[in-house]
Amino acid sequence: MSTSTKTVPILTLDGARTAIAAAEARSKEIGVPMNIAIVDAYTHLVAFHRMEGAKITSINIAIDKAFTAAGHRAPTSVYKEMVWPGGPAFSIWNSNGGRFLTIAGGIPIMQDGVVVGAIGCSTGTPAQDEDCATKGVEAVEKSLKVKAKL
Amino acid sequence: MSTSTKTVPILTLDGARTAIAAAEARSKEIGVPMNIAIVDAYTHLVAFHRMEGAKITSINIAIDKAFTAAGHRAPTSVYKEMVWPGGPAFSIWNSNGGRFLTIAGGIPIMQDGVVVGAIGCSTGTPAQDEDCATKGVEAVEKSLKVKAKL
Amino acid sequence: MSTSTKTVPILTLDGARTAIAAAEARSKEIGVPMNIAIVDAYTHLVAFHRMEGAKITSINIAIDKAFTAAGHRAPTSVYKEMVWPGGPAFSIWNSNGGRFLTIAGGIPIMQDGVVVGAIGCSTGTPAQDEDCATKGVEAVEKSLKVKAKL
Amino acid sequence: MSTSTKTVPILTLDGARTAIAAAEARSKEIGVPMNIAIVDAYTHLVAFHRMEGAKITSINIAIDKAFTAAGHRAPTSVYKEMVWPGGPAFSIWNSNGGRFLTIAGGIPIMQDGVVVGAIGCSTGTPAQDEDCATKGVEAVEKSLKVKAKL
Repeated sequence: MSTSTKTVPILTLDGARTAIAAAEARSKEIGVPMNIAIVDAYTHLVAFHRMEGAKITSINIAIDKAFTAAGHRAPTSVYKEMVWPGGPAFSIWNSNGGRFLTIAGGIPIMQDGVVVGAIGCSTGTPAQDEDCATKGVEAVEKSLKVKAKL
Repeated sequence: MSTSTKTVPILTLDGARTAIAAAEARSKEIGVPMNIAIVDAYTHLVAFHRMEGAKITSINIAIDKAFTAAGHRAPTSVYKEMVWPGGPAFSIWNSNGGRFLTIAGGIPIMQDGVVVGAIGCSTGTPAQDEDCATKGVEAVEKSLKVKAKL
Repeated sequence: MSTSTKTVPILTLDGARTAIAAAEARSKEIGVPMNIAIVDAYTHLVAFHRMEGAKITSINIAIDKAFTAAGHRAPTSVYKEMVWPGGPAFSIWNSNGGRFLTIAGGIPIMQDGVVVGAIGCSTGTPAQDEDCATKGVEAVEKSLKVKAKL
Repeated sequence: MSTSTKTVPILTLDGARTAIAAAEARSKEIGVPMNIAIVDAYTHLVAFHRMEGAKITSINIAIDKAFTAAGHRAPTSVYKEMVWPGGPAFSIWNSNGGRFLTIAGGIPIMQDGVVVGAIGCSTGTPAQDEDCATKGVEAVEKSLKVKAKL
Protein backbone atom coordinates (compact mmCIF):
# COMPACT_ATOMS: atom_id res chain seq x y z
CA MET A 1 0.00 0.00 0.00
CA SER A 2 1.41 3.36 -0.98
CA THR A 3 1.99 6.07 1.63
CA SER A 4 1.58 8.78 -1.00
CA THR A 5 -2.19 8.66 -0.73
CA LYS A 6 -4.73 7.61 1.87
CA THR A 7 -8.41 6.74 1.67
CA VAL A 8 -10.97 8.82 3.57
CA PRO A 9 -14.76 8.62 4.03
CA ILE A 10 -16.69 11.72 3.04
CA LEU A 11 -20.31 12.85 3.17
CA THR A 12 -22.34 12.63 -0.06
CA LEU A 13 -25.23 14.74 -1.35
CA ASP A 14 -27.51 11.88 -0.31
CA GLY A 15 -26.21 12.11 3.23
CA ALA A 16 -26.62 15.89 3.13
CA ARG A 17 -30.25 15.54 2.03
CA THR A 18 -30.94 13.26 4.99
CA ALA A 19 -29.45 15.76 7.41
CA ILE A 20 -31.31 18.70 5.88
CA ALA A 21 -34.66 16.89 5.95
CA ALA A 22 -34.31 16.11 9.65
CA ALA A 23 -33.15 19.62 10.53
CA GLU A 24 -36.08 21.07 8.55
CA ALA A 25 -38.52 18.80 10.34
CA ARG A 26 -37.22 19.92 13.73
CA SER A 27 -37.27 23.54 12.62
CA LYS A 28 -40.97 23.21 11.81
CA GLU A 29 -41.65 21.54 15.15
CA ILE A 30 -40.19 24.45 17.09
CA GLY A 31 -41.59 27.03 14.70
CA VAL A 32 -38.28 28.67 13.85
CA PRO A 33 -37.33 28.65 10.14
CA MET A 34 -33.69 27.87 9.48
CA ASN A 35 -30.86 28.31 7.05
CA ILE A 36 -29.28 24.85 6.88
CA ALA A 37 -25.83 24.29 5.41
CA ILE A 38 -24.00 21.01 4.91
CA VAL A 39 -20.29 20.81 4.12
CA ASP A 40 -17.96 17.88 3.51
CA ALA A 41 -15.02 16.87 5.70
CA TYR A 42 -12.87 19.37 3.80
CA THR A 43 -15.23 22.30 4.58
CA HIS A 44 -16.71 22.65 1.07
CA LEU A 45 -20.45 23.24 0.64
CA VAL A 46 -22.45 20.14 -0.32
CA ALA A 47 -25.99 21.44 0.11
CA PHE A 48 -27.89 24.42 1.47
CA HIS A 49 -31.56 25.14 2.07
CA ARG A 50 -33.08 28.40 3.25
CA MET A 51 -36.55 27.82 4.67
CA GLU A 52 -39.26 30.45 4.25
CA GLY A 53 -38.72 33.13 6.85
CA ALA A 54 -35.11 32.28 7.63
CA LYS A 55 -32.91 35.36 8.05
CA ILE A 56 -30.89 36.74 5.16
CA THR A 57 -27.85 37.51 7.30
CA SER A 58 -28.02 33.99 8.69
CA ILE A 59 -27.24 32.42 5.29
CA ASN A 60 -23.57 33.19 5.75
CA ILE A 61 -23.68 32.27 9.45
CA ALA A 62 -25.09 28.80 8.74
CA ILE A 63 -22.47 28.16 6.07
CA ASP A 64 -19.60 29.34 8.27
CA LYS A 65 -20.81 27.36 11.29
CA ALA A 66 -20.66 24.22 9.15
CA PHE A 67 -17.26 25.29 7.80
CA THR A 68 -15.88 25.71 11.32
CA ALA A 69 -17.38 22.47 12.70
CA ALA A 70 -15.92 20.43 9.83
CA GLY A 71 -12.53 22.12 9.76
CA HIS A 72 -11.91 22.14 13.48
CA ARG A 73 -13.79 18.85 14.04
CA ALA A 74 -15.80 20.14 17.02
CA PRO A 75 -19.24 21.63 17.65
CA THR A 76 -19.09 25.43 17.44
CA SER A 77 -20.63 25.52 20.93
CA VAL A 78 -17.39 24.37 22.59
CA TYR A 79 -15.49 27.63 22.32
CA LYS A 80 -17.43 29.68 24.87
CA GLU A 81 -14.82 29.88 27.64
CA MET A 82 -11.85 29.52 25.33
CA VAL A 83 -12.68 32.72 23.47
CA TRP A 84 -13.50 34.81 26.53
CA PRO A 85 -11.17 37.71 27.19
CA GLY A 86 -8.07 36.05 28.56
CA GLY A 87 -9.09 32.64 27.17
CA PRO A 88 -6.48 30.65 25.23
CA ALA A 89 -8.30 30.99 21.89
CA PHE A 90 -9.38 34.61 22.25
CA SER A 91 -9.57 36.16 18.75
CA ILE A 92 -9.71 32.82 16.90
CA TRP A 93 -12.97 34.07 15.36
CA ASN A 94 -10.86 36.31 13.16
CA SER A 95 -8.90 33.47 11.59
CA ASN A 96 -9.67 31.88 8.23
CA GLY A 97 -10.63 35.23 6.76
CA GLY A 98 -13.14 35.80 9.55
CA ARG A 99 -15.04 32.61 8.76
CA PHE A 100 -14.27 30.87 12.09
CA LEU A 101 -17.59 31.04 13.94
CA THR A 102 -17.71 30.26 17.67
CA ILE A 103 -21.50 30.43 18.01
CA ALA A 104 -23.55 27.29 18.74
CA GLY A 105 -25.25 25.66 15.75
CA GLY A 106 -22.42 23.96 13.86
CA ILE A 107 -21.86 20.23 14.50
CA PRO A 108 -19.58 17.66 12.86
CA ILE A 109 -21.11 14.56 11.25
CA MET A 110 -19.18 11.44 12.29
CA GLN A 111 -18.76 7.93 10.93
CA ASP A 112 -16.81 5.43 13.05
CA GLY A 113 -15.14 8.25 14.95
CA VAL A 114 -14.11 10.16 11.84
CA VAL A 115 -15.53 13.53 10.75
CA VAL A 116 -17.11 13.10 7.30
CA GLY A 117 -18.84 16.50 7.12
CA ALA A 118 -20.74 19.02 9.20
CA ILE A 119 -24.03 20.86 9.48
CA GLY A 120 -24.65 24.49 10.36
CA CYS A 121 -28.01 26.04 11.26
CA SER A 122 -28.88 29.69 11.82
CA THR A 123 -31.80 32.07 12.34
CA GLY A 124 -32.99 31.23 15.87
CA THR A 125 -31.17 31.52 19.15
CA PRO A 126 -27.89 29.59 19.25
CA ALA A 127 -29.68 26.95 21.37
CA GLN A 128 -32.46 26.57 18.77
CA ASP A 129 -29.90 26.46 15.97
CA GLU A 130 -27.97 23.74 17.77
CA ASP A 131 -31.18 21.80 18.45
CA CYS A 132 -32.01 21.63 14.73
CA ALA A 133 -28.41 20.88 13.79
CA THR A 134 -28.34 18.02 16.28
CA LYS A 135 -31.41 16.45 14.70
CA GLY A 136 -29.76 16.67 11.29
CA VAL A 137 -26.61 15.01 12.56
CA GLU A 138 -28.50 12.24 14.33
CA ALA A 139 -30.49 11.39 11.20
CA VAL A 140 -27.51 11.03 8.92
CA GLU A 141 -25.41 9.20 11.53
CA LYS A 142 -28.30 6.80 12.09
CA SER A 143 -28.51 6.16 8.33
CA LEU A 144 -24.81 5.27 8.35
CA LYS A 145 -25.27 2.74 11.15
CA VAL A 146 -28.36 1.17 9.62
CA LYS A 147 -26.56 0.71 6.33
CA ALA A 148 -23.53 -0.71 8.10
CA LYS A 149 -25.67 -3.47 9.63
CA LEU A 150 -27.14 -4.67 6.32
CA MET B 1 -53.09 52.01 -1.00
CA SER B 2 -49.83 53.41 0.27
CA THR B 3 -46.93 53.96 -2.06
CA SER B 4 -44.53 53.46 0.83
CA THR B 5 -44.46 49.71 0.30
CA LYS B 6 -45.00 47.33 -2.57
CA THR B 7 -45.61 43.62 -2.97
CA VAL B 8 -43.10 41.57 -4.90
CA PRO B 9 -43.17 37.98 -6.18
CA ILE B 10 -40.18 35.99 -5.06
CA LEU B 11 -38.96 32.44 -5.48
CA THR B 12 -39.49 30.07 -2.54
CA LEU B 13 -37.54 27.03 -1.35
CA ASP B 14 -40.25 24.91 -3.00
CA GLY B 15 -39.61 26.65 -6.29
CA ALA B 16 -35.89 26.21 -5.80
CA ARG B 17 -36.33 22.48 -5.20
CA THR B 18 -38.26 22.15 -8.46
CA ALA B 19 -35.51 23.94 -10.37
CA ILE B 20 -32.76 21.88 -8.77
CA ALA B 21 -34.54 18.58 -9.44
CA ALA B 22 -34.89 19.40 -13.13
CA ALA B 23 -31.32 20.61 -13.46
CA GLU B 24 -30.07 17.46 -11.71
CA ALA B 25 -32.13 15.27 -14.02
CA ARG B 26 -30.63 16.97 -17.08
CA SER B 27 -27.16 16.76 -15.57
CA LYS B 28 -27.54 12.99 -15.26
CA GLU B 29 -28.83 12.71 -18.84
CA ILE B 30 -25.74 14.41 -20.24
CA GLY B 31 -23.41 12.69 -17.76
CA VAL B 32 -21.89 15.86 -16.33
CA PRO B 33 -22.34 16.33 -12.55
CA MET B 34 -23.22 19.87 -11.56
CA ASN B 35 -23.08 22.40 -8.77
CA ILE B 36 -26.55 23.96 -8.81
CA ALA B 37 -27.30 27.21 -7.00
CA ILE B 38 -30.63 28.98 -6.66
CA VAL B 39 -30.93 32.58 -5.48
CA ASP B 40 -33.94 34.81 -4.92
CA ALA B 41 -34.74 38.06 -6.73
CA TYR B 42 -32.50 39.85 -4.23
CA THR B 43 -29.47 37.64 -5.13
CA HIS B 44 -29.45 35.74 -1.84
CA LEU B 45 -28.92 31.98 -1.79
CA VAL B 46 -32.10 29.90 -1.43
CA ALA B 47 -30.73 26.43 -2.12
CA PHE B 48 -27.60 24.71 -3.35
CA HIS B 49 -26.78 21.11 -4.29
CA ARG B 50 -23.39 19.75 -5.25
CA MET B 51 -23.80 16.47 -7.14
CA GLU B 52 -21.21 13.70 -6.71
CA GLY B 53 -18.25 14.53 -8.94
CA ALA B 54 -19.03 18.22 -9.41
CA LYS B 55 -15.92 20.40 -9.24
CA ILE B 56 -14.88 22.04 -5.97
CA THR B 57 -13.88 25.30 -7.68
CA SER B 58 -17.27 25.37 -9.41
CA ILE B 59 -19.20 25.74 -6.14
CA ASN B 60 -18.39 29.43 -6.06
CA ILE B 61 -18.90 29.78 -9.81
CA ALA B 62 -22.41 28.31 -9.70
CA ILE B 63 -23.39 30.60 -6.82
CA ASP B 64 -21.97 33.70 -8.51
CA LYS B 65 -23.61 32.88 -11.86
CA ALA B 66 -26.97 32.80 -10.08
CA PHE B 67 -26.08 36.00 -8.18
CA THR B 68 -25.26 37.78 -11.43
CA ALA B 69 -28.30 36.52 -13.34
CA ALA B 70 -30.69 37.62 -10.57
CA GLY B 71 -29.06 40.95 -9.87
CA HIS B 72 -28.58 42.04 -13.48
CA ARG B 73 -31.77 40.25 -14.59
CA ALA B 74 -30.17 38.63 -17.64
CA PRO B 75 -28.59 35.30 -18.53
CA THR B 76 -24.85 35.37 -17.89
CA SER B 77 -24.33 34.28 -21.50
CA VAL B 78 -25.32 37.70 -22.90
CA TYR B 79 -22.13 39.55 -22.02
CA LYS B 80 -19.79 38.00 -24.56
CA GLU B 81 -19.29 40.96 -26.88
CA MET B 82 -20.01 43.57 -24.24
CA VAL B 83 -17.03 42.52 -22.15
CA TRP B 84 -14.53 42.25 -25.00
CA PRO B 85 -11.66 44.70 -24.93
CA GLY B 86 -13.24 47.90 -26.14
CA GLY B 87 -16.74 46.64 -25.31
CA PRO B 88 -19.07 48.84 -23.28
CA ALA B 89 -19.02 46.58 -20.20
CA PHE B 90 -15.33 45.67 -20.26
CA SER B 91 -14.17 44.97 -16.68
CA ILE B 92 -17.68 44.59 -15.26
CA TRP B 93 -16.57 41.15 -13.98
CA ASN B 94 -14.59 42.94 -11.31
CA SER B 95 -17.61 44.71 -9.85
CA ASN B 96 -19.50 43.49 -6.79
CA GLY B 97 -16.34 42.34 -5.14
CA GLY B 98 -15.47 40.25 -8.16
CA ARG B 99 -18.69 38.24 -8.03
CA PHE B 100 -20.08 39.44 -11.39
CA LEU B 101 -19.64 36.37 -13.61
CA THR B 102 -19.99 36.72 -17.38
CA ILE B 103 -19.78 33.01 -18.21
CA ALA B 104 -22.82 31.10 -19.53
CA GLY B 105 -24.76 29.05 -16.99
CA GLY B 106 -26.65 31.64 -14.97
CA ILE B 107 -30.31 32.30 -15.93
CA PRO B 108 -33.07 34.38 -14.31
CA ILE B 109 -36.33 32.69 -13.30
CA MET B 110 -39.30 34.78 -14.47
CA GLN B 111 -42.95 35.06 -13.53
CA ASP B 112 -45.19 37.30 -15.66
CA GLY B 113 -42.19 39.16 -16.98
CA VAL B 114 -40.67 39.75 -13.54
CA VAL B 115 -37.46 38.18 -12.25
CA VAL B 116 -38.25 36.17 -9.10
CA GLY B 117 -34.92 34.41 -8.74
CA ALA B 118 -32.13 32.78 -10.72
CA ILE B 119 -30.23 29.55 -11.19
CA GLY B 120 -26.53 29.00 -11.73
CA CYS B 121 -24.87 25.74 -12.85
CA SER B 122 -21.17 24.93 -13.08
CA THR B 123 -18.73 22.05 -13.71
CA GLY B 124 -19.17 21.33 -17.43
CA THR B 125 -18.49 23.54 -20.41
CA PRO B 126 -20.40 26.82 -20.31
CA ALA B 127 -22.78 25.33 -22.92
CA GLN B 128 -23.45 22.27 -20.75
CA ASP B 129 -23.91 24.44 -17.67
CA GLU B 130 -26.42 26.62 -19.51
CA ASP B 131 -28.24 23.53 -20.80
CA CYS B 132 -28.83 22.25 -17.25
CA ALA B 133 -29.70 25.71 -15.95
CA THR B 134 -32.27 26.10 -18.73
CA LYS B 135 -33.99 22.88 -17.73
CA GLY B 136 -34.16 24.10 -14.15
CA VAL B 137 -35.68 27.41 -15.20
CA GLU B 138 -38.22 25.75 -17.50
CA ALA B 139 -39.41 23.40 -14.76
CA VAL B 140 -40.04 26.09 -12.18
CA GLU B 141 -41.57 28.51 -14.70
CA LYS B 142 -43.89 25.73 -15.89
CA SER B 143 -44.99 25.10 -12.30
CA LEU B 144 -45.82 28.80 -11.98
CA LYS B 145 -48.03 28.70 -15.09
CA VAL B 146 -49.80 25.52 -13.98
CA LYS B 147 -50.61 27.12 -10.66
CA ALA B 148 -51.84 30.27 -12.40
CA LYS B 149 -54.32 28.24 -14.45
CA LEU B 150 -55.90 26.48 -11.48
CA MET C 1 -23.06 0.08 1.80
CA SER C 2 -24.46 3.45 2.80
CA THR C 3 -25.05 6.15 0.20
CA SER C 4 -24.62 8.86 2.85
CA THR C 5 -20.86 8.70 2.58
CA LYS C 6 -18.34 7.67 -0.03
CA THR C 7 -14.66 6.78 0.17
CA VAL C 8 -12.09 8.83 -1.73
CA PRO C 9 -8.31 8.62 -2.20
CA ILE C 10 -6.34 11.70 -1.20
CA LEU C 11 -2.71 12.80 -1.31
CA THR C 12 -0.68 12.57 1.92
CA LEU C 13 2.23 14.65 3.21
CA ASP C 14 4.47 11.76 2.16
CA GLY C 15 3.18 12.04 -1.38
CA ALA C 16 3.61 15.80 -1.26
CA ARG C 17 7.23 15.42 -0.16
CA THR C 18 7.92 13.14 -3.13
CA ALA C 19 6.44 15.66 -5.53
CA ILE C 20 8.33 18.58 -4.01
CA ALA C 21 11.66 16.76 -4.09
CA ALA C 22 11.29 15.98 -7.79
CA ALA C 23 10.18 19.51 -8.65
CA GLU C 24 13.10 20.93 -6.68
CA ALA C 25 15.55 18.65 -8.47
CA ARG C 26 14.24 19.80 -11.87
CA SER C 27 14.32 23.41 -10.73
CA LYS C 28 18.03 23.06 -9.93
CA GLU C 29 18.72 21.38 -13.28
CA ILE C 30 17.26 24.30 -15.20
CA GLY C 31 18.68 26.89 -12.80
CA VAL C 32 15.38 28.53 -11.96
CA PRO C 33 14.42 28.51 -8.25
CA MET C 34 10.76 27.75 -7.58
CA ASN C 35 7.94 28.20 -5.15
CA ILE C 36 6.34 24.74 -5.00
CA ALA C 37 2.89 24.21 -3.51
CA ILE C 38 1.03 20.94 -3.03
CA VAL C 39 -2.68 20.78 -2.25
CA ASP C 40 -5.02 17.86 -1.65
CA ALA C 41 -7.98 16.87 -3.84
CA TYR C 42 -10.10 19.37 -1.92
CA THR C 43 -7.72 22.29 -2.70
CA HIS C 44 -6.25 22.62 0.81
CA LEU C 45 -2.50 23.18 1.24
CA VAL C 46 -0.53 20.07 2.20
CA ALA C 47 3.03 21.33 1.77
CA PHE C 48 4.94 24.30 0.43
CA HIS C 49 8.62 25.00 -0.17
CA ARG C 50 10.14 28.26 -1.34
CA MET C 51 13.60 27.65 -2.78
CA GLU C 52 16.35 30.26 -2.33
CA GLY C 53 15.84 32.95 -4.94
CA ALA C 54 12.20 32.13 -5.72
CA LYS C 55 10.05 35.24 -6.15
CA ILE C 56 8.03 36.62 -3.23
CA THR C 57 5.00 37.42 -5.38
CA SER C 58 5.13 33.90 -6.77
CA ILE C 59 4.34 32.33 -3.39
CA ASN C 60 0.68 33.12 -3.85
CA ILE C 61 0.78 32.21 -7.54
CA ALA C 62 2.17 28.74 -6.85
CA ILE C 63 -0.46 28.10 -4.18
CA ASP C 64 -3.32 29.31 -6.39
CA LYS C 65 -2.12 27.34 -9.41
CA ALA C 66 -2.29 24.19 -7.27
CA PHE C 67 -5.68 25.28 -5.92
CA THR C 68 -7.05 25.73 -9.43
CA ALA C 69 -5.59 22.49 -10.81
CA ALA C 70 -7.06 20.44 -7.95
CA GLY C 71 -10.44 22.14 -7.87
CA HIS C 72 -11.05 22.19 -11.61
CA ARG C 73 -9.19 18.90 -12.17
CA ALA C 74 -7.16 20.16 -15.14
CA PRO C 75 -3.73 21.65 -15.78
CA THR C 76 -3.84 25.44 -15.55
CA SER C 77 -2.32 25.55 -19.03
CA VAL C 78 -5.55 24.43 -20.71
CA TYR C 79 -7.43 27.70 -20.43
CA LYS C 80 -5.51 29.75 -22.97
CA GLU C 81 -8.10 29.96 -25.74
CA MET C 82 -11.08 29.61 -23.44
CA VAL C 83 -10.22 32.80 -21.56
CA TRP C 84 -9.38 34.89 -24.62
CA PRO C 85 -11.70 37.81 -25.27
CA GLY C 86 -14.79 36.15 -26.66
CA GLY C 87 -13.82 32.75 -25.26
CA PRO C 88 -16.42 30.77 -23.33
CA ALA C 89 -14.62 31.09 -19.98
CA PHE C 90 -13.52 34.72 -20.34
CA SER C 91 -13.31 36.25 -16.83
CA ILE C 92 -13.20 32.91 -15.01
CA TRP C 93 -9.92 34.11 -13.45
CA ASN C 94 -12.02 36.36 -11.23
CA SER C 95 -13.99 33.52 -9.68
CA ASN C 96 -13.23 31.93 -6.30
CA GLY C 97 -12.23 35.26 -4.82
CA GLY C 98 -9.74 35.84 -7.62
CA ARG C 99 -7.86 32.63 -6.86
CA PHE C 100 -8.64 30.91 -10.19
CA LEU C 101 -5.32 31.05 -12.03
CA THR C 102 -5.20 30.30 -15.76
CA ILE C 103 -1.40 30.43 -16.12
CA ALA C 104 0.62 27.28 -16.84
CA GLY C 105 2.32 25.62 -13.88
CA GLY C 106 -0.52 23.94 -11.99
CA ILE C 107 -1.10 20.21 -12.63
CA PRO C 108 -3.39 17.65 -10.99
CA ILE C 109 -1.89 14.53 -9.40
CA MET C 110 -3.85 11.44 -10.45
CA GLN C 111 -4.29 7.93 -9.09
CA ASP C 112 -6.26 5.45 -11.22
CA GLY C 113 -7.91 8.29 -13.12
CA VAL C 114 -8.94 10.20 -9.99
CA VAL C 115 -7.49 13.55 -8.90
CA VAL C 116 -5.90 13.10 -5.44
CA GLY C 117 -4.15 16.47 -5.26
CA ALA C 118 -2.23 19.00 -7.33
CA ILE C 119 1.07 20.82 -7.61
CA GLY C 120 1.70 24.44 -8.48
CA CYS C 121 5.08 25.96 -9.38
CA SER C 122 5.96 29.60 -9.91
CA THR C 123 8.92 31.97 -10.43
CA GLY C 124 10.09 31.12 -13.97
CA THR C 125 8.29 31.45 -17.26
CA PRO C 126 5.00 29.54 -17.35
CA ALA C 127 6.76 26.91 -19.49
CA GLN C 128 9.53 26.49 -16.89
CA ASP C 129 6.99 26.39 -14.08
CA GLU C 130 5.04 23.68 -15.89
CA ASP C 131 8.23 21.72 -16.58
CA CYS C 132 9.06 21.55 -12.85
CA ALA C 133 5.44 20.83 -11.91
CA THR C 134 5.37 17.96 -14.42
CA LYS C 135 8.43 16.36 -12.83
CA GLY C 136 6.76 16.60 -9.44
CA VAL C 137 3.60 14.96 -10.71
CA GLU C 138 5.49 12.18 -12.49
CA ALA C 139 7.48 11.32 -9.35
CA VAL C 140 4.48 10.97 -7.08
CA GLU C 141 2.36 9.16 -9.69
CA LYS C 142 5.24 6.73 -10.26
CA SER C 143 5.44 6.08 -6.49
CA LEU C 144 1.75 5.22 -6.52
CA LYS C 145 2.19 2.69 -9.32
CA VAL C 146 5.28 1.10 -7.79
CA LYS C 147 3.48 0.63 -4.51
CA ALA C 148 0.44 -0.76 -6.29
CA LYS C 149 2.58 -3.51 -7.84
CA LEU C 150 4.03 -4.74 -4.55
CA MET D 1 30.39 51.66 2.75
CA SER D 2 27.12 53.10 1.55
CA THR D 3 24.24 53.65 3.94
CA SER D 4 21.79 53.19 1.08
CA THR D 5 21.68 49.43 1.63
CA LYS D 6 22.21 47.07 4.51
CA THR D 7 22.78 43.35 4.92
CA VAL D 8 20.26 41.32 6.85
CA PRO D 9 20.31 37.73 8.12
CA ILE D 10 17.32 35.75 6.97
CA LEU D 11 16.08 32.21 7.40
CA THR D 12 16.59 29.85 4.46
CA LEU D 13 14.62 26.84 3.26
CA ASP D 14 17.32 24.70 4.90
CA GLY D 15 16.68 26.42 8.20
CA ALA D 16 12.96 26.01 7.71
CA ARG D 17 13.38 22.28 7.11
CA THR D 18 15.31 21.93 10.36
CA ALA D 19 12.58 23.72 12.28
CA ILE D 20 9.81 21.69 10.65
CA ALA D 21 11.56 18.37 11.32
CA ALA D 22 11.93 19.17 15.02
CA ALA D 23 8.34 20.41 15.34
CA GLU D 24 7.09 17.27 13.57
CA ALA D 25 9.12 15.06 15.89
CA ARG D 26 7.65 16.77 18.95
CA SER D 27 4.17 16.57 17.44
CA LYS D 28 4.55 12.80 17.11
CA GLU D 29 5.82 12.50 20.68
CA ILE D 30 2.73 14.21 22.09
CA GLY D 31 0.39 12.52 19.62
CA VAL D 32 -1.09 15.72 18.18
CA PRO D 33 -0.64 16.19 14.43
CA MET D 34 0.25 19.74 13.43
CA ASN D 35 0.12 22.27 10.64
CA ILE D 36 3.60 23.81 10.69
CA ALA D 37 4.38 27.06 8.90
CA ILE D 38 7.72 28.82 8.57
CA VAL D 39 8.05 32.41 7.38
CA ASP D 40 11.08 34.62 6.85
CA ALA D 41 11.89 37.86 8.67
CA TYR D 42 9.68 39.68 6.18
CA THR D 43 6.63 37.49 7.06
CA HIS D 44 6.59 35.60 3.75
CA LEU D 45 6.03 31.84 3.70
CA VAL D 46 9.19 29.73 3.33
CA ALA D 47 7.79 26.28 4.02
CA PHE D 48 4.66 24.57 5.24
CA HIS D 49 3.82 20.97 6.17
CA ARG D 50 0.41 19.62 7.12
CA MET D 51 0.80 16.35 9.00
CA GLU D 52 -1.81 13.60 8.58
CA GLY D 53 -4.74 14.44 10.80
CA ALA D 54 -3.94 18.13 11.29
CA LYS D 55 -7.04 20.32 11.11
CA ILE D 56 -8.09 21.99 7.86
CA THR D 57 -9.05 25.25 9.57
CA SER D 58 -5.67 25.28 11.31
CA ILE D 59 -3.75 25.65 8.02
CA ASN D 60 -4.52 29.34 7.96
CA ILE D 61 -4.02 29.69 11.72
CA ALA D 62 -0.51 28.18 11.59
CA ILE D 63 0.48 30.49 8.73
CA ASP D 64 -0.91 33.59 10.43
CA LYS D 65 0.71 32.75 13.78
CA ALA D 66 4.07 32.64 12.00
CA PHE D 67 3.19 35.85 10.12
CA THR D 68 2.39 37.64 13.38
CA ALA D 69 5.43 36.34 15.28
CA ALA D 70 7.83 37.42 12.52
CA GLY D 71 6.22 40.77 11.83
CA HIS D 72 5.76 41.86 15.43
CA ARG D 73 8.95 40.05 16.54
CA ALA D 74 7.33 38.42 19.58
CA PRO D 75 5.71 35.10 20.47
CA THR D 76 1.97 35.21 19.82
CA SER D 77 1.45 34.11 23.45
CA VAL D 78 2.47 37.51 24.83
CA TYR D 79 -0.70 39.40 23.96
CA LYS D 80 -3.06 37.85 26.49
CA GLU D 81 -3.53 40.81 28.82
CA MET D 82 -2.80 43.43 26.19
CA VAL D 83 -5.80 42.40 24.09
CA TRP D 84 -8.29 42.13 26.95
CA PRO D 85 -11.16 44.60 26.87
CA GLY D 86 -9.56 47.80 28.09
CA GLY D 87 -6.06 46.50 27.27
CA PRO D 88 -3.71 48.69 25.25
CA ALA D 89 -3.78 46.45 22.16
CA PHE D 90 -7.48 45.57 22.21
CA SER D 91 -8.63 44.86 18.62
CA ILE D 92 -5.12 44.48 17.20
CA TRP D 93 -6.26 41.05 15.93
CA ASN D 94 -8.22 42.85 13.27
CA SER D 95 -5.20 44.61 11.81
CA ASN D 96 -3.30 43.41 8.76
CA GLY D 97 -6.47 42.27 7.10
CA GLY D 98 -7.37 40.18 10.11
CA ARG D 99 -4.16 38.15 9.96
CA PHE D 100 -2.77 39.33 13.33
CA LEU D 101 -3.22 36.26 15.55
CA THR D 102 -2.86 36.59 19.32
CA ILE D 103 -3.11 32.89 20.14
CA ALA D 104 -0.10 30.95 21.44
CA GLY D 105 1.84 28.88 18.89
CA GLY D 106 3.77 31.46 16.87
CA ILE D 107 7.42 32.11 17.85
CA PRO D 108 10.19 34.16 16.25
CA ILE D 109 13.44 32.47 15.23
CA MET D 110 16.43 34.53 16.39
CA GLN D 111 20.09 34.78 15.46
CA ASP D 112 22.34 36.99 17.59
CA GLY D 113 19.34 38.86 18.93
CA VAL D 114 17.84 39.48 15.49
CA VAL D 115 14.61 37.95 14.19
CA VAL D 116 15.39 35.95 11.04
CA GLY D 117 12.03 34.22 10.67
CA ALA D 118 9.24 32.58 12.65
CA ILE D 119 7.34 29.36 13.10
CA GLY D 120 3.63 28.84 13.64
CA CYS D 121 1.93 25.61 14.74
CA SER D 122 -1.76 24.80 14.98
CA THR D 123 -4.21 21.94 15.59
CA GLY D 124 -3.80 21.21 19.30
CA THR D 125 -4.45 23.40 22.31
CA PRO D 126 -2.51 26.66 22.22
CA ALA D 127 -0.15 25.16 24.81
CA GLN D 128 0.50 22.09 22.62
CA ASP D 129 0.97 24.27 19.56
CA GLU D 130 3.50 26.42 21.41
CA ASP D 131 5.30 23.33 22.68
CA CYS D 132 5.87 22.05 19.14
CA ALA D 133 6.77 25.51 17.85
CA THR D 134 9.34 25.88 20.63
CA LYS D 135 11.04 22.64 19.62
CA GLY D 136 11.21 23.89 16.03
CA VAL D 137 12.76 27.18 17.09
CA GLU D 138 15.31 25.50 19.39
CA ALA D 139 16.45 23.16 16.64
CA VAL D 140 17.11 25.84 14.08
CA GLU D 141 18.67 28.25 16.62
CA LYS D 142 20.97 25.46 17.78
CA SER D 143 22.06 24.81 14.20
CA LEU D 144 22.91 28.50 13.89
CA LYS D 145 25.13 28.39 16.99
CA VAL D 146 26.87 25.21 15.86
CA LYS D 147 27.68 26.83 12.54
CA ALA D 148 28.96 29.94 14.28
CA LYS D 149 31.47 27.87 16.28
CA LEU D 150 33.02 26.10 13.30
